[in-house]
Amino acid sequence: MIGPVPPLPPWVDDANAPLLVDLYELTMAQAYWREGMADEEAVFSLYFRQLPERRNYVLACGLADALRFLERLAFAGEHLDYLESLGHFSRAFLDWLAALRFTGEVWAVPEGTPVFPEEPLIEVVGPIAAGQLAESFLMNQVCFQSVLASKAARVVTAAGGRAVVDFGLRRMHGADAGLKSARAFHVAGVAATSNVLAGRIYGVPVAGTMAHSYVQAHDDELEAFRAFARLYPETVLLVDTYDTLAGVRKVVELARELGGSFRVRAIRLDSGDLAELARRSREILDRAGLERVEIFASGGLDEDRIAELVALGAPIDGFGVGTDMGVSRDAPVLDMAYKLTAYAGKGRLKTSPGKPILPGRKQVFRREVAGEAAGDVIARAGESGPGRPLLERVMAGGRTLAEDPGDLERARERARREIGALPARVRGLAPADPPYPVAVSAELAGYAEEVRKEVEAG
Amino acid sequence: MIGPVPPLPPWVDDANAPLLVDLYELTMAQAYWREGMADEEAVFSLYFRQLPERRNYVLACGLADALRFLERLAFAGEHLDYLESLGHFSRAFLDWLAALRFTGEVWAVPEGTPVFPEEPLIEVVGPIAAGQLAESFLMNQVCFQSVLASKAARVVTAAGGRAVVDFGLRRMHGADAGLKSARAFHVAGVAATSNVLAGRIYGVPVAGTMAHSYVQAHDDELEAFRAFARLYPETVLLVDTYDTLAGVRKVVELARELGGSFRVRAIRLDSGDLAELARRSREILDRAGLERVEIFASGGLDEDRIAELVALGAPIDGFGVGTDMGVSRDAPVLDMAYKLTAYAGKGRLKTSPGKPILPGRKQVFRREVAGEAAGDVIARAGESGPGRPLLERVMAGGRTLAEDPGDLERARERARREIGALPARVRGLAPADPPYPVAVSAELAGYAEEVRKEVEAG
Repeated sequence: MIGPVPPLPPWVDDANAPLLVDLYELTMAQAYWREGMADEEAVFSLYFRQLPERRNYVLACGLADALRFLERLAFAGEHLDYLESLGHFSRAFLDWLAALRFTGEVWAVPEGTPVFPEEPLIEVVGPIAAGQLAESFLMNQVCFQSVLASKAARVVTAAGGRAVVDFGLRRMHGADAGLKSARAFHVAGVAATSNVLAGRIYGVPVAGTMAHSYVQAHDDELEAFRAFARLYPETVLLVDTYDTLAGVRKVVELARELGGSFRVRAIRLDSGDLAELARRSREILDRAGLERVEIFASGGLDEDRIAELVALGAPIDGFGVGTDMGVSRDAPVLDMAYKLTAYAGKGRLKTSPGKPILPGRKQVFRREVAGEAAGDVIARAGESGPGRPLLERVMAGGRTLAEDPGDLERARERARREIGALPARVRGLAPADPPYPVAVSAELAGYAEEVRKEVEAG
Repeated sequence: MIGPVPPLPPWVDDANAPLLVDLYELTMAQAYWREGMADEEAVFSLYFRQLPERRNYVLACGLADALRFLERLAFAGEHLDYLESLGHFSRAFLDWLAALRFTGEVWAVPEGTPVFPEEPLIEVVGPIAAGQLAESFLMNQVCFQSVLASKAARVVTAAGGRAVVDFGLRRMHGADAGLKSARAFHVAGVAATSNVLAGRIYGVPVAGTMAHSYVQAHDDELEAFRAFARLYPETVLLVDTYDTLAGVRKVVELARELGGSFRVRAIRLDSGDLAELARRSREILDRAGLERVEIFASGGLDEDRIAELVALGAPIDGFGVGTDMGVSRDAPVLDMAYKLTAYAGKGRLKTSPGKPILPGRKQVFRREVAGEAAGDVIARAGESGPGRPLLERVMAGGRTLAEDPGDLERARERARREIGALPARVRGLAPADPPYPVAVSAELAGYAEEVRKEVEAG
């Protein structure tokens, strides 16, 4: 008798990522294969249909993971055995699937670029079966990373140059989000993360202070501050475990004790009326000659609250932002789509109400006037403007072309530059009025009309 | 000259999960170690402070992953090297950290149990350093899995016995959420998922239909239906790529062609006025003698929209639910906390405004009257009621006690039974008025007061 099979590790990795698909992608792949269509060239376009209410732009993020998936797409034997057990797939198809690799090309907007509705973030051009199998994974990664980068860009804007630190790991949706959100936030201008693994894997600067539990574990708050500052002289002390201002006075007491060796960098406020507590803490610190001790604030912050604190002139030098940024609470999702726009050299669309598709391969041109983005045009691939083309060829023959498509510092620098080039009303927190202008080129509009007529005739 | 170091794989697994911590957990651990406190027993309690506006209860989920983390907590050499590079940690501490394991016990509410504010979902009892290091990971996993299970429970309630299928992978926050949400949804009563990897790893039933791209790739919608049904006779055909009712008529045409061998199980509507289209599709199918072909609906569904369709009497037999359930859009997060409630045998709390902590180890008792849950009491551990205790000892000496704490079918059956035992107003979609009653026992309240006085005196 065979004992119970040990459960599989509950993790996604390069080896099992190809199974992170919706079943229909595999059943469709088998159908394409049976119909002799599987190797015919298709174009899939990844874009979103509408901006969420509180977003003026979306910051593209997640391309590096998309390319990694396509480059490594390969089903392992044990995955094929599992698929066979589902009863939908023939062994002949699974043998064919075992050899399947993505051999096509990818055009994409680089990470850190602001994008707008209907603009392709990624176009996958290759045999239809492999392109179809990438649908869910590419959407999953690009959607959430772009959602979170877009939220973080607002928080960074609100902070107006003050440092923002990501504290969101504990409230994010799972380990993969915890890891990759820290990277997406850094692309968007967040200075550092509390997440150590994100530091290890991506090189995001890691930062941290102390938790209430540390203070609680000591019988006395001052003793906790003393012990922590002894070990970490330039630390940040959390002052609100009991009475916030009494906590600040204990920091002053510690400074008196330590004299010239007191090097505590900041205090952290985590509850209560942050503007008022920051003002009163600043007074207490300044009166004690501790002008260079900074004030760091956290606790339920989002871009609105930060903008309010900044507008009130609260003497806060940096913000720790967790929950609201960590799940992009006001807009946790984008209406993202991955749609077939061409097959066998012919443009494709669908006519379901409210969900149009722009057919064929496309390019997006961004016009700039005196260094400011003046409007985008979605055009057919091969058109020549007006403006700067945003989609670049990043993969050919199934191999990534860019030196390092996941280069974090380049993506961060691009985001800084490209957000900075948006009109002030689009960069800002309030709804842009008018919204950033995006047009469809006459050639693409004409082509869409032509394809629609063919489909309606067919 | 050494070439560029290849980037690390962007995945979390058992080996690197211990680094998925907030930096302050490690700096505090070193401080505890330096102060000779690291091995002192602490109690950490994981709970949430408030119900989101549109939730009457939270369905506990994620315990299996929490236990897996605690059981395997061990830092590898290369992680210690990385930590050393941060400049905060001494080699002596890192050597100590290398040998650190979680050796304590865990009490927890089993997965699939409805829980309420301030009730511990998990209590971690063990040396403070290891307990502290589990903070972010446990919160990350238990928070999002409980958030998503709670949302799914509402969707299942709204569907009133009709099957709900999870289509959310593409919009979820990352790969880990994609995988584990499918499991959390199944705990909450969702019938199946489109996510193949969740089927492979957890045994969740997998289901799927077809995408618009499949229909689009064919020159003719009927030809697409014919080819798909030939390969998958009992499939579901997606009828809204072009004109929905014309699509339904093509299904009828296919039935005529195939005669007795026509076995298509259902059609799927994915856009437009679903109630009206379902009614008219039903008429077309019934007139053609296809009464046994079911109607499956998807496209922007949540519990409110499903309840509305059910109330309208729309002839829909099952629902595919993606985005709104996949990120729990209306409440993507819980105000979850992981707080020190005892250290060295003494109860601990903090007094920051609005964030009370119930000190010490606790138990939750659920009173039932005639099989219906009548109210909970949060008590000190060791009290004897009234009612059934919800927290069970699931780990001792760092080893999991339960046969399989992640047993999916048992968690699902528990959820069905325990949600069924809630009062109708609490199970329902509308805000429960009055809310489910949760009290603090006189003994716990007295103890909290006592600890508060000690803290204020100290």
